[in-house]
Amino acid sequence: MMRGENASNSESYMFLKKELPVRLANIMKEFHLLPENLLHMPSVGAVRDLYRRSFMDLLEYETTSPTNTTITLEKFTEALVKIRNRHSDVVMTMAQGVMELKDAHAINANTESNIQYFLDRFYMNRISIRMLINQHTMLFGENVNSQNHIGSIDPHCNVVRVIEDAYSNARFLCDQYYLASPELVLTHHNADTHPASVVYVPSHLYHMLFELFKNAMRAVVEHHGPEADNFPPVRVLLVMGEEDLTIKLSDQGGGIPRSLMDLLFNYMYSTAPQPAVSGLDTPPLAGYGYGLPLSRLYARYFHGDLQVTSCDGYGTDTTIYLKALSSEANELLPVYNKTCQRQYSTPVQTHDWSSQMNSAMFIRPFSTNSRNKHQQNSS
Amino acid sequence: MMRGENASNSESYMFLKKELPVRLANIMKEFHLLPENLLHMPSVGAVRDLYRRSFMDLLEYETTSPTNTTITLEKFTEALVKIRNRHSDVVMTMAQGVMELKDAHAINANTESNIQYFLDRFYMNRISIRMLINQHTMLFGENVNSQNHIGSIDPHCNVVRVIEDAYSNARFLCDQYYLASPELVLTHHNADTHPASVVYVPSHLYHMLFELFKNAMRAVVEHHGPEADNFPPVRVLLVMGEEDLTIKLSDQGGGIPRSLMDLLFNYMYSTAPQPAVSGLDTPPLAGYGYGLPLSRLYARYFHGDLQVTSCDGYGTDTTIYLKALSSEANELLPVYNKTCQRQYSTPVQTHDWSSQMNSAMFIRPFSTNSRNKHQQNSS
Repeated sequence: MMRGENASNSESYMFLKKELPVRLANIMKEFHLLPENLLHMPSVGAVRDLYRRSFMDLLEYETTSPTNTTITLEKFTEALVKIRNRHSDVVMTMAQGVMELKDAHAINANTESNIQYFLDRFYMNRISIRMLINQHTMLFGENVNSQNHIGSIDPHCNVVRVIEDAYSNARFLCDQYYLASPELVLTHHNADTHPASVVYVPSHLYHMLFELFKNAMRAVVEHHGPEADNFPPVRVLLVMGEEDLTIKLSDQGGGIPRSLMDLLFNYMYSTAPQPAVSGLDTPPLAGYGYGLPLSRLYARYFHGDLQVTSCDGYGTDTTIYLKALSSEANELLPVYNKTCQRQYSTPVQTHDWSSQMNSAMFIRPFSTNSRNKHQQNSS
Repeated sequence: MMRGENASNSESYMFLKKELPVRLANIMKEFHLLPENLLHMPSVGAVRDLYRRSFMDLLEYETTSPTNTTITLEKFTEALVKIRNRHSDVVMTMAQGVMELKDAHAINANTESNIQYFLDRFYMNRISIRMLINQHTMLFGENVNSQNHIGSIDPHCNVVRVIEDAYSNARFLCDQYYLASPELVLTHHNADTHPASVVYVPSHLYHMLFELFKNAMRAVVEHHGPEADNFPPVRVLLVMGEEDLTIKLSDQGGGIPRSLMDLLFNYMYSTAPQPAVSGLDTPPLAGYGYGLPLSRLYARYFHGDLQVTSCDGYGTDTTIYLKALSSEANELLPVYNKTCQRQYSTPVQTHDWSSQMNSAMFIRPFSTNSRNKHQQNSS
């Protein structure tokens, strides 16, 4: 798999100088399919410029073989670092673009649907590009990682450690703001026969868990009140199965009614974006509202998933699924094709199931109101 | 709401003699959109005949006002009973039709998708027709229900009782077959402030819970082995929230890998239909495989839901959501419109996300195989 260091650097260079422009170009094509009024927002224009510039930077290497190998390879690595830095605020900038649109126009169902679809793909594309860049720079850049990692990948990621780290950092923020926080009860099922070690990117896993712990703690403390004598602990169940590694985080933070569940992952209805400030005005656990949808993208990036199940009035379970077998953990990438194009051009349709507004019969039988309402709507 | 008994009978008659033919006709229109080869299956033809006959039976009342009121109303009620009996085996007959199709033809993705879509709508339409018929016959038929129920609706459905009944009946079957069964641990959160009483159809709730308890018990006993000293109990959490009444049933029956989750509700991949036999060959807890998708339809019928979350190697949580407020619990009905028609005619498309088969990069970085595979697939 890994041959001599120089040979690998050159192979990686040959791969990336084609692959990275392809990934940039693909998402730039999808930009064109966005609603016009979003494309006109200043922040969105700024992001497109970044992508164009980075694409041009990489084009220089399109036809260059690594003739003066070392110098070209060094220049290329530096170019990647420059691109990574240039794009570091893109999530927030796109979020601002969405906010600008909301302020400027009324948003219809089609626009919302297209933006939701696009942002999932745009952010996933970005995660994947950063992954490729990080792998290259960490393996072949100046500060070569000397642990047993392969770039950002840990072949023996200690899941319990990542859970404990994410918990204690979230707890620190929670204590800082509320002067109180719930405990962690971690159960590792079948720990002796099924150790939870997996080939994974620890920073991705940390990112997801930190987000989930912040959400859980905030819910628990706000639901019970910061003055409460004690809080029900946040429980984590960790299970290494044959196919899935599952981390289920359960809180008793009062839960979420089912009617609000769709909004959890909705980019347009998330809170206004602001940099993570640790002032007293903004609960540092709040962030700018993209935490859940982005965490889900991280989970899905290697064919895992992140699911939320809640009990209104009680609490919420959030489950992270990772592939237990690294042979199944390959990249999930948006593909630009006819199916994708149709998503943008097909308008949101009338429902093929009745809504709560116009159904025939309420569970209170034969009330005249509901009957008349139905007769107006009969096909 | 309920006026004089005779007046209500007459109102119900006036409503149903239009509404029932409309519901029958709507689903008969969708039959036409099914794949040809399914329509040719003998069992499917038989079901269509039943629907035609029942439609014709009801047409007799189309233009009849209740002139000789009592006799017409009696005849109508008898006609409804006859229709209900005629249709009592429809679920199994349609399932046989699907089996006949699988035996006769190779099933492509389109056919499978259309059948799945159709059967959810067909069975929901049937649930709703039977609900209307039962309401009428129970309120105005020969054996008038003398409890405080409104037909099949209990305005004060005692959810704890239904849970306990469903558990003990499932336990009886489990003990009979395996000579062992797991205990129940029922937690009613906030029982004192939020009693779990709801306007609902107890038989629907029982049907769902009985199915879930059977699944959970079977999983637990088979996973741990019938000879095990003790089994982890089946835990039920019951929560009455502001919007949702939630019943979460948790087992430690070994769980289901994520790759198999879609099949849980799939009509085509469920086991061959057979009547519930209590012979020694067929575990009576197995049924004919439609239990989960049908239970979900019952939950969704009044705008609730049924969701399954599992941990591969540990166990499964299944959650029933009901509307806490009866004002939100109206019927969910399939609507025959252009959106519906498009579902049948639009072929299943190529994916707009990469699959596990052809992704660029496995989490093992820079292996030549995965790189070449991607270059073949680059757009």
